[in-house]
Amino acid sequence: MADEVILLDVNVSMFGMRVRIALAEKGVQYEYREENLADKSPFLLQMNPVHKKIPVLIHNGKPICESLIILDYIDNVWTHKSPLLPSDPYQRATARFWADFVDKKIFDAGRRIWTRKGEEQEAAKKEFIDALVLLQGELGDKPYFGGDQFGFVDISLITFYCWFYAYEKCGNFSIEEHCPKLISWAKRCMEKETVSKSLPDPNEVYEFVLMLKNKYGF
Amino acid sequence: MADEVILLDVNVSMFGMRVRIALAEKGVQYEYREENLADKSPFLLQMNPVHKKIPVLIHNGKPICESLIILDYIDNVWTHKSPLLPSDPYQRATARFWADFVDKKIFDAGRRIWTRKGEEQEAAKKEFIDALVLLQGELGDKPYFGGDQFGFVDISLITFYCWFYAYEKCGNFSIEEHCPKLISWAKRCMEKETVSKSLPDPNEVYEFVLMLKNKYGF
Repeated sequence: MADEVILLDVNVSMFGMRVRIALAEKGVQYEYREENLADKSPFLLQMNPVHKKIPVLIHNGKPICESLIILDYIDNVWTHKSPLLPSDPYQRATARFWADFVDKKIFDAGRRIWTRKGEEQEAAKKEFIDALVLLQGELGDKPYFGGDQFGFVDISLITFYCWFYAYEKCGNFSIEEHCPKLISWAKRCMEKETVSKSLPDPNEVYEFVLMLKNKYGF
Repeated sequence: MADEVILLDVNVSMFGMRVRIALAEKGVQYEYREENLADKSPFLLQMNPVHKKIPVLIHNGKPICESLIILDYIDNVWTHKSPLLPSDPYQRATARFWADFVDKKIFDAGRRIWTRKGEEQEAAKKEFIDALVLLQGELGDKPYFGGDQFGFVDISLITFYCWFYAYEKCGNFSIEEHCPKLISWAKRCMEKETVSKSLPDPNEVYEFVLMLKNKYGF
């Protein structure tokens, strides 16, 4: 029997995009189901009753939640190609550390760039850039975070790239000015079809941000 | 050459205790170095320049940070006994999900119980109990979260048990009243020497909390 794989997702979600890239890297066919976060489906609430969030990967009826945990699961199940995590324990721990860093520092600071104003926004921009500069330092002169191989940290971070335009428009600043090497890395990742086909157009993300700003008065 | 293993830690840290239990489960000898969070050692700042936090495990000169990542690393390196994570990919993902849940829900709500007052404290108590009730449901009638085997989720949660007394004293409530089965599980874990020897006395934790309340006016 063939695997049944369903992804509950939202197009502009950087967490959902991670799962799309990972499945594309592994060549896994799946059914994509777009959720409406303003009116979540009963199926989503049933599959992720704890956090009630997307993405949820449902593999032969069993749900897996939280994007980095899903990536790990995908890597453990589909082992035939494109390893996402390195096999060396120390390199694995390092990859997990930086992906966790992206979750802890990039998402929240990025969100505050477009939801806050004045001093709070300036503080968010500084935090955001500081975090990217640290990531750029970790990247160094390597083509990808894992070295020659596109992997776990690359997937975790590249999905924010299609949000950069919205951050820059809302924050009136240039990310490339501060992190030119990171932008080169992002463009390198975008040359991969598994990435470019999994990310929405930056204009679409910006429209989404403007819609939320208008709706909630950010 | 024997492995050199150093743990930078603080006695009352539930995150540090996790690493102590994992090392004890694996029978790994290590050098314990108590840090002073009010005056962090240059070595800690050098080993964890990004977050500047304990615990840090230093294995043959290489630092590993963030407690759940350290547990994962320990499990990958010392494979000879006491597996912490199950080998089945779905069970692994489930264990990671609940350990992540503990980090996201238990720590923060617990902290607000002793740092806030009035309505904010009541809200924190409710969140804390709601999260424990969910965990109790996940435990079900199993002896441990992983089934018959003490493992990743058990380690992630049991270290909060020595903080329960401080939460209860500060919040004037009984945890056992709401989660009797979880308390039975905690007592079962405490029968393991690897756990009981890794946790400080609840009175010591309470004294630490009182010291901080006094120092910062919580």
